[in-house]
Amino acid sequence: MLPKIGQYQFKAEAFRCNMLGYLPYQQMGNYMLDAADLHANERDFGMTYLMPRHLAWVLSRFSLEMTDMPRPAQPFTIETWVESTLKLFTSRNFRVTSGDKILGYGRSVWAMINTQSRQPANILAVRDGEMNYWVDTDTPCPIAPPAKFRFGGNEQKIRTIQTLFSDADINGHINSMRYIEHILNLFEPDWHREHYIKRIDMSYMAESHCGDLLHLYLDQTADAIGVRVSKSTTADGEETDVCRCRIVY
Amino acid sequence: MLPKIGQYQFKAEAFRCNMLGYLPYQQMGNYMLDAADLHANERDFGMTYLMPRHLAWVLSRFSLEMTDMPRPAQPFTIETWVESTLKLFTSRNFRVTSGDKILGYGRSVWAMINTQSRQPANILAVRDGEMNYWVDTDTPCPIAPPAKFRFGGNEQKIRTIQTLFSDADINGHINSMRYIEHILNLFEPDWHREHYIKRIDMSYMAESHCGDLLHLYLDQTADAIGVRVSKSTTADGEETDVCRCRIVY
Repeated sequence: MLPKIGQYQFKAEAFRCNMLGYLPYQQMGNYMLDAADLHANERDFGMTYLMPRHLAWVLSRFSLEMTDMPRPAQPFTIETWVESTLKLFTSRNFRVTSGDKILGYGRSVWAMINTQSRQPANILAVRDGEMNYWVDTDTPCPIAPPAKFRFGGNEQKIRTIQTLFSDADINGHINSMRYIEHILNLFEPDWHREHYIKRIDMSYMAESHCGDLLHLYLDQTADAIGVRVSKSTTADGEETDVCRCRIVY
Repeated sequence: MLPKIGQYQFKAEAFRCNMLGYLPYQQMGNYMLDAADLHANERDFGMTYLMPRHLAWVLSRFSLEMTDMPRPAQPFTIETWVESTLKLFTSRNFRVTSGDKILGYGRSVWAMINTQSRQPANILAVRDGEMNYWVDTDTPCPIAPPAKFRFGGNEQKIRTIQTLFSDADINGHINSMRYIEHILNLFEPDWHREHYIKRIDMSYMAESHCGDLLHLYLDQTADAIGVRVSKSTTADGEETDVCRCRIVY
């Protein structure tokens, strides 16, 4: 049997690093999704197994806390494991290391849906609850659970973005890490130069599709930034919340 | 001594593939830039050697002809070598393979500049012309030399884009492959579904920086699409050409 923890090697390709010389959060997030996908597929509860059964994993929460980010050409390792599995949600954690150094940790929460009805599916019904076998409660993930920014209704619309072909990924909808990129783009290079982002918490509520308009609303408290993203099909159309983000810097 | 050809292993990360299930041109281009960077650095004529000497490589032409693109999790190899070196330009070729299969080839032309004066620098003056040692005229690159679309002045402005933080790369200017992404985003998913892009030719004329506006102009003939990209600092400001693209599909 495979170990409960999957370990995957990556390298920060130079031209995926940002102008400040390190891998940005959305790129690290995509490597983590990739690690999650490989870990699940190798253990037969990934998309390869689920797709023909009209089931799919849907990312619900994603929290990432990085004390440092890989620099150009720096190799790094992502370890990932399942922390818990309930009927409707499963938690998957991540640890990012480079050599002996821990760069950061991630937490994610996933739901399963039936791709035909778009309704939640019972995770424990897959192979008679076999996913329970993979649960690892021993490996620590020493960062706080997923958190939310408390929006008080004072958030201001900062930008409307039309989603385009390259915003969508293999799932056919806007890539969940692309929202992080759009959110970090709300800030000028000078802001990024002066602030290192310690942690990002994403809550995903709905999917958006190529052609949708995304509306980004921003609020700020003394210790965090909140960004709410909604979608509409026309600029004056009804908006539906897509995701919410908390940034701690 | 190292071999003249450098060989680098990559894997198409699932979440960098597009909604049609394959790695898009701009992502392949970034892997190629990465391979070029590694090849040059390992042979002591890369940015690591040049930067402290106030010299830098600048991409002038980039042509990519792919008969197939890697699919999610597919490993692939990029081989790269220097085809010729003159005083002001050097040509570097690429071959992309996956297992026994050739996926495509690339050609690129680079100039060297003095980063203080921004003027062209003499490539053959670096280490007394040592770059000549690395020239490989034996390895074939069976695709046509870089080509240009003949713009007749009838091109129409299709989109203006404000460049943002994540558009810039470690060089501090807009990533050369990001232009390809912006150009491919001019077409709807349905167009991409119906047309496989056989070849892209880029000519780079100037750099643009985070905050610049990019204006994309499109023209089309029976067998190719041309996109001209200009930049301005304000929407009604003077425009300067940044790059031109020919797409063969």
